[in-house]
Amino acid sequence: MKALNIGLIGTGFMGKAHAIALKAAPTVFSLPALPVCDLLAEVDDEMAARKARELGFARSTGDWRALVADPEVDVVDICAPNFLHQEMALAAIAAGKHVYAEKPLALSAADAQQMVEAAERAGVKTLVGFNYIRNSATRLAREIIASGEIGELIHFRGRHNEDYLADPAKPHDWHTRRATAGAGALGDVGSHILNMAEYLTGRRIQEVFGQLQTVIPKRPLADGSAGLGEVENDDQAQALLRFDGGLIGNIETSRVAVGRKMGLAYTVTGTKGTIAFDQERMSELQLYKSEGPEGRRGFRTLLIGPEHPDYAAFSPAPGHGLGYNDQKIIEIRDLVEGIVTGTPLYPDFREAWRVNRMIDAIETSHAEGCWLPV
Amino acid sequence: MKALNIGLIGTGFMGKAHAIALKAAPTVFSLPALPVCDLLAEVDDEMAARKARELGFARSTGDWRALVADPEVDVVDICAPNFLHQEMALAAIAAGKHVYAEKPLALSAADAQQMVEAAERAGVKTLVGFNYIRNSATRLAREIIASGEIGELIHFRGRHNEDYLADPAKPHDWHTRRATAGAGALGDVGSHILNMAEYLTGRRIQEVFGQLQTVIPKRPLADGSAGLGEVENDDQAQALLRFDGGLIGNIETSRVAVGRKMGLAYTVTGTKGTIAFDQERMSELQLYKSEGPEGRRGFRTLLIGPEHPDYAAFSPAPGHGLGYNDQKIIEIRDLVEGIVTGTPLYPDFREAWRVNRMIDAIETSHAEGCWLPV
Amino acid sequence: MKALNIGLIGTGFMGKAHAIALKAAPTVFSLPALPVCDLLAEVDDEMAARKARELGFARSTGDWRALVADPEVDVVDICAPNFLHQEMALAAIAAGKHVYAEKPLALSAADAQQMVEAAERAGVKTLVGFNYIRNSATRLAREIIASGEIGELIHFRGRHNEDYLADPAKPHDWHTRRATAGAGALGDVGSHILNMAEYLTGRRIQEVFGQLQTVIPKRPLADGSAGLGEVENDDQAQALLRFDGGLIGNIETSRVAVGRKMGLAYTVTGTKGTIAFDQERMSELQLYKSEGPEGRRGFRTLLIGPEHPDYAAFSPAPGHGLGYNDQKIIEIRDLVEGIVTGTPLYPDFREAWRVNRMIDAIETSHAEGCWLPV
Amino acid sequence: MKALNIGLIGTGFMGKAHAIALKAAPTVFSLPALPVCDLLAEVDDEMAARKARELGFARSTGDWRALVADPEVDVVDICAPNFLHQEMALAAIAAGKHVYAEKPLALSAADAQQMVEAAERAGVKTLVGFNYIRNSATRLAREIIASGEIGELIHFRGRHNEDYLADPAKPHDWHTRRATAGAGALGDVGSHILNMAEYLTGRRIQEVFGQLQTVIPKRPLADGSAGLGEVENDDQAQALLRFDGGLIGNIETSRVAVGRKMGLAYTVTGTKGTIAFDQERMSELQLYKSEGPEGRRGFRTLLIGPEHPDYAAFSPAPGHGLGYNDQKIIEIRDLVEGIVTGTPLYPDFREAWRVNRMIDAIETSHAEGCWLPV
Repeated sequence: MKALNIGLIGTGFMGKAHAIALKAAPTVFSLPALPVCDLLAEVDDEMAARKARELGFARSTGDWRALVADPEVDVVDICAPNFLHQEMALAAIAAGKHVYAEKPLALSAADAQQMVEAAERAGVKTLVGFNYIRNSATRLAREIIASGEIGELIHFRGRHNEDYLADPAKPHDWHTRRATAGAGALGDVGSHILNMAEYLTGRRIQEVFGQLQTVIPKRPLADGSAGLGEVENDDQAQALLRFDGGLIGNIETSRVAVGRKMGLAYTVTGTKGTIAFDQERMSELQLYKSEGPEGRRGFRTLLIGPEHPDYAAFSPAPGHGLGYNDQKIIEIRDLVEGIVTGTPLYPDFREAWRVNRMIDAIETSHAEGCWLPV
Repeated sequence: MKALNIGLIGTGFMGKAHAIALKAAPTVFSLPALPVCDLLAEVDDEMAARKARELGFARSTGDWRALVADPEVDVVDICAPNFLHQEMALAAIAAGKHVYAEKPLALSAADAQQMVEAAERAGVKTLVGFNYIRNSATRLAREIIASGEIGELIHFRGRHNEDYLADPAKPHDWHTRRATAGAGALGDVGSHILNMAEYLTGRRIQEVFGQLQTVIPKRPLADGSAGLGEVENDDQAQALLRFDGGLIGNIETSRVAVGRKMGLAYTVTGTKGTIAFDQERMSELQLYKSEGPEGRRGFRTLLIGPEHPDYAAFSPAPGHGLGYNDQKIIEIRDLVEGIVTGTPLYPDFREAWRVNRMIDAIETSHAEGCWLPV
Repeated sequence: MKALNIGLIGTGFMGKAHAIALKAAPTVFSLPALPVCDLLAEVDDEMAARKARELGFARSTGDWRALVADPEVDVVDICAPNFLHQEMALAAIAAGKHVYAEKPLALSAADAQQMVEAAERAGVKTLVGFNYIRNSATRLAREIIASGEIGELIHFRGRHNEDYLADPAKPHDWHTRRATAGAGALGDVGSHILNMAEYLTGRRIQEVFGQLQTVIPKRPLADGSAGLGEVENDDQAQALLRFDGGLIGNIETSRVAVGRKMGLAYTVTGTKGTIAFDQERMSELQLYKSEGPEGRRGFRTLLIGPEHPDYAAFSPAPGHGLGYNDQKIIEIRDLVEGIVTGTPLYPDFREAWRVNRMIDAIETSHAEGCWLPV
Repeated sequence: MKALNIGLIGTGFMGKAHAIALKAAPTVFSLPALPVCDLLAEVDDEMAARKARELGFARSTGDWRALVADPEVDVVDICAPNFLHQEMALAAIAAGKHVYAEKPLALSAADAQQMVEAAERAGVKTLVGFNYIRNSATRLAREIIASGEIGELIHFRGRHNEDYLADPAKPHDWHTRRATAGAGALGDVGSHILNMAEYLTGRRIQEVFGQLQTVIPKRPLADGSAGLGEVENDDQAQALLRFDGGLIGNIETSRVAVGRKMGLAYTVTGTKGTIAFDQERMSELQLYKSEGPEGRRGFRTLLIGPEHPDYAAFSPAPGHGLGYNDQKIIEIRDLVEGIVTGTPLYPDFREAWRVNRMIDAIETSHAEGCWLPV
C-alpha cells in the first residue's frame, strides 16, 4: 500500500494525540494509504530522539526546518504552540508539503489569510484540527440537521467553556499573552464553537456582536519573579450571531468557567425538533421531534452506535462509547483520504481563516459596540 | 386570627393556581393572618358564580369594578390578561386596596411607571407574581451566591424557553398582538428570567444589547376567518447583559423552542464555584465548588430538603419534591407576611417596573444596534 | 354540596400532608363532596387544640377514641404511628366509619387480616395511603404498560431506598423496634415498592425469595441512657420475585442507603419497550420503544403534562411539575370519589393486607432459605 | 526495546479491538516491551491474509494450530468464539505460550479448571479480557472503595443488561446453544458483572441464590430452514449475593433488556458514602459522601481526568473522555507489564475460573431453589 510519511512538529497534548491516532487509524479504518510516523521534530535533538522513541517515530530532529525540508516527508503535522503555526506552515508550503495544523490556524485573520493564499498558490492540501466536529454524535447531529429532520433551523446556542485558567494563582503562559496567543478564550476554545456553529448548521455566520472580558486582569509572572503581569487577552467572551438565511444564535466561551472541563455544548432548534449535545457526554445526543402523540414526546438520548457516522469502524456494538482520541483517528482518516483521493478536506486553511475572521470581528465589535460583518 | 380578604380577578391558569395556593397556604405555613377566598370576578355573573363554586370563593361578581370597590376586599389579586393589569391595578389602588398582580406588570415601562407612582402615592402594598424566584432550589441558589460560597460572580447565563407557539398552525391570541401583549416571548416568559437575573445575583442590570426575531411572521386569524394575520411581536429574543460591579451575562427567551415546556434555566459562575439549575427539574440544584482534592470535585446534585429555604413547611423529609403550585403557596405566605407585618414585598411594582424597562431597552437596543442603559 | 367530615388522628409528617391536601383538593379537582377538616385528635387536649389551629381543623380532642365515636365524623383518617393503626382502625370500623389509613396497614399480615375482615363485615370503605402510585408519572407508566405499548412484560426492578437511619449515632425510635414497627426498612419503605410492583404491572406477586440484614445491629437508647440497644428489624432487604404469567423481578429496600432521600425507582421491561422512573425526579418518566429506525431510538424523557393522568387539574401547562403533596391531593380526590360514588377504592385494606403478606413471606423466606408463596 | 510477539486468533468484534489496542498502546503508555502484531489466524488462508492486511499483522495463517506452534509467537491472543477457548488455550499452554483470552474463559467451571491447572503447571502467564474493570472511572471507584473513603461496604448492586437478542425474529447463533455458549446472558454479559462485583469490592462472593429465565423460548433456525428451534440457555438472570465479611448484594443480567446497549452499571453503598456508575456514561462516576453540612450534600459527577487512574496517558486535560477501545489499550499495558516484569496479572485464568464457578452456582441454585456456595 502507498505510504504517506508524516513529519510531526511538537509533542505536547496534541502531538501525542496525533501520534496515537496515526498508529491506530490504519487498523480502525480501511485507508487508501498508510500514514507512517516518519520524522519528529522537537526543540532539541535529545528531546526529539526521546519523544520519537516514546511516540513511535522512525526518525527525529531538533530542527523543525530540517523536518519541513526533508524530502521523505509528505505531510507536515504542526502541533507546536499557536504562535508558531504561521511560520511553520509557510515553510512547509514553500517546501511543497501538505499541511495538517492544529487550531486556531493563526493569531489573526491577516496571518491566516497569508497562509491560505500560500497554500492555494502551492496547490498543497491543508487540514486544521477542529477535532470535535469529527465526533460521531456531532456528525449525527449534522446529518439530522442537513436532512431536514428537525425542520428549518431557527436558533443556535453554543458554548465552549473550560476552567483551565480559573485559578488566579496560575501564572502567565503563552495563553495569556497577545503575542503568543492572539485572542484568549475566544481564540483558544472559542474557535471550536465558532467552527462548529457553521459546520452543524450548514450556514455562514454573517454578522457578530461581541463582548469580551478579562476576569483576572493580573497573574503571577511565568518566570517566578515577584509581582504580577497584565493578562493581555480575554478570559471569557460571548457573542450574538446572525447567520445567512435568517438564523440567529449566540456563543459563549471561557477559560475561567469553574467546573467545566470539556464544556463544548450546543442546542440547535428547528421548526420541527431540537438537538442538544454536551461534549462531556460525547457519546450521546439528545433529540426531540414534534411527531407522534403529544403525550409521548420528549428529548430522547441517542447512544452512538453502528448506524451513526464512523462508529462501526470502532465497534459493531452500540453504546460502547468513543473517546477523545477516537476523534483524532477519524481526523487522520479524513486527512489521508483527502490527500490520496484529492477530495476537499474540511476544514482546510480557507475554512479556518473564516474562524480567525470571526474572532477578529467579535473583538472589534466589542470595541466598537456594534454589529460587524465577518 | 386576623383575616385578609382576597378579591380575585380572572380564573384561568394563574387564577386557579392562586386559588389553590390561598387554600393551602395557611396549613403549610404559620401565617400572621388568614387569607380568605372572599370575592371572585369573572367576565359575567354566571361564569363568576360557577368559578366561585369551583375555586371555593364565598362571593362572586361579573363586574371587576364592583370587586375593586367592595369594602370587604383587602387585597385585589389580578390574574386577568396582561393588557388589563394597568387599568385594574390603578382602580384597585384608587380604592385603597393592596394589589397582587401577575407578571408582566404592564405592557410597557411607561404604563408600569404610572402604576408604581399611583401605588406609592396611595401607600398600598404591591406584589408581582414572579413565582419561580420562590422555588426552594432557587432560594437556595440565591443563599449560596449571597454568602460568597462560590466567590465573586463572573458570569450569568439564563434562559426561559417554551414552545407554546411553536406550531405555525396555532392561530393568533392575545400573546401575538402588540396591543394586548406588548413584547412577545420577551415580555411573557422573558420577564421571568430578567427578574431572576437580578434576584439571583443581587446585582442590577445596567446595560443590555438585544436581538429579537419573529420566527413565524403570519398566523391564522383567531376568529377562524380565511387568511393569515401578521404576528406583531417577537417569538424569540436574546440579549447580552452588563450588570453593576463588572458582571456580564446573557439571556435567551422563546415561545417557539420546540421541546421546551418549562425551560427556565440558569448557570451562575463565580470565581470559586458554579451553580446550575433547570426548572424542569425544579427540586434539585447543581453545585460545583473549587474545594477539596481536584480528583473529587464535580457538580453535585443537591436535592431540596428541610435544610433549604421554606422546604420544611411542606415536608420534613428531604428529596420528596415541590411542585409548581407550591411556589405560589410560598408567594402567598410572602404576600400575607408583607402586608400584615409591613415589611417590604419583593418584587413589588417598583421592582417589576425595572423588568418592563429592561424589556423596552432590549427592544430599542435591537432596533438601534447598540448597548442601551436600562 | 355534600360534606364529608374528616377526623384526623396524628399530626406528624403525614398528618400535616393530609391536612394540606384536604384544604387544596376541592379547588384542584371538581369533587362530588366537600371534604371538611372537622375534628383533629392528638396526644392531649392542648396539643390537639394547637394543631387544629395550625392545620385548620374546626374541632379538636386529646382522645382519639372520642374522635372515632364522634357522630359528625364520616371518615377516620389515621396518621398515627404504625403500631396504632390496628387498634384505631378496628375502633373506627366498629363505629361505622370509613377509614383512611397510612401505610403500612399493620405490623403483620395477621393483624391486617383482622382489619380487612372487620371492614368488610361492617361494609365501610377503606383506603391506604400508598401515595406514590398516585403520582402522574407513575399513573402514566401504568397506562403505558396496561395498553400493551411496551409489549409483554418480562422484568420488573424496583427499589425504595432512603438513608434516614444511615447514621449509627441516631438513637432507637419506633422504627427500630419489632413491637412498634414490625419489619424494618422492608415494612416502612419496602411496602411502597411491593405495592407499586403489583400496581404498575397489573400482575400478582406469587412467590418471593428474600434476604434481610440489620447493618447497624446496636444503636444508642432513645431515652439517652448509656449503652446501646439491639435493633430488632432489618436495615436493608432484597427479594427476587415471581409474578403470575411468568414475569420475574426483584426489589430492594433500605433505610441506610447513604445519599438516597426519596429513592423509590423502578424499571419495567417489556418485549417492545422499557420504562424507567425515579421518584427523586418525580415529574418525568423515561420511555424507550422499539419502533422507528434503530438510529433514532433512545430513552426519551417525558415531562408530565396535561395529556397525562390528573396533571391538567394542577396546571394546563406541561412540564411545570408536581410535588410530593400533590400526590396526596390526588389521593384525597380518589378517597372522596370512592366514598361518594361507591366505586372501589385502591388500595383498600384487602389490597394492603397483600403487602403485609408479602413482607411476612419475604421475612420467612429469608429465615428458611427458600421460595415462599405470598 | 524488547519485542513481545502477539499471535491473534479471531478477528471479529474483539479481535479488531485487540488489534487497535496493540497498535496504540506503545504510544499511549511507556511499555517495558513492544507488543508486535506478528501473526494472525483466521478460518482459512485467504481470510487470514486479508484480515492481516486490514488489522496490520505481519504474517497470517488459516490454521490456528500453526499459530500456536509458531516459535516466534510469545503470546497467544484468543478472540475466537467462546466454545473454542478451551481447546486453543490448552494447545497454547502446551506450546509454552502466554495466553490472553477473551471472556468468559470457558463454558463451564470444569473446563476452566482444566485450563487453570494446565497454565499453572506450565508456568505461563494468563489474562482474561474483562475489559470494563480497566476503565478509569471504574478504577477510580475501586480506589475510593479500597481507601475506605465511603466507609464499610454494606451493599452491592450490579447489572449488565443489553438487548442484542431482544428481537424474537433474530435467529439462533452460537449464543443460544448450550454446546457453543454454556450459559446465556449470564455467561456472556453476566460474567462481566460477576467479576466486577469482586474486583470493585475487594470481597469474595461466597454464596449465591439465582433465578434464570428464557424469555424467548424458540427462535428461527440459523440456517434459514422453516420452523423454530429451542433456545437452550437463559435470556435473563438475577441473583442475590453473600460476600465475605457480611456484605450483601444482587446482580441482574439480560440480553433482552430492550433499550440497553452497554448496560453495565453498579451502585456500591458504604456506611459513609455511595458510588454509582453506568458504562453508557463511561467517563463519569457518581460519588456521594456523608461529609460537610447536610444541605450541601449530593451525588457529585466526577469527570475522569488526569488525577484518576491511567487517564493522563491518554490526555492531560480532564473531562475529555475515554472510549471503549481505550479500555483495551489499558488491558494491553497490563498484559505487557505483567509478562515482562513477572508481576501477577489480573484477572488471570484462576480468577476467571471463579467467574465460571459463580455462573455454575447460580444455574444450580436456580434449579435447586436454595443458596449455594461458589
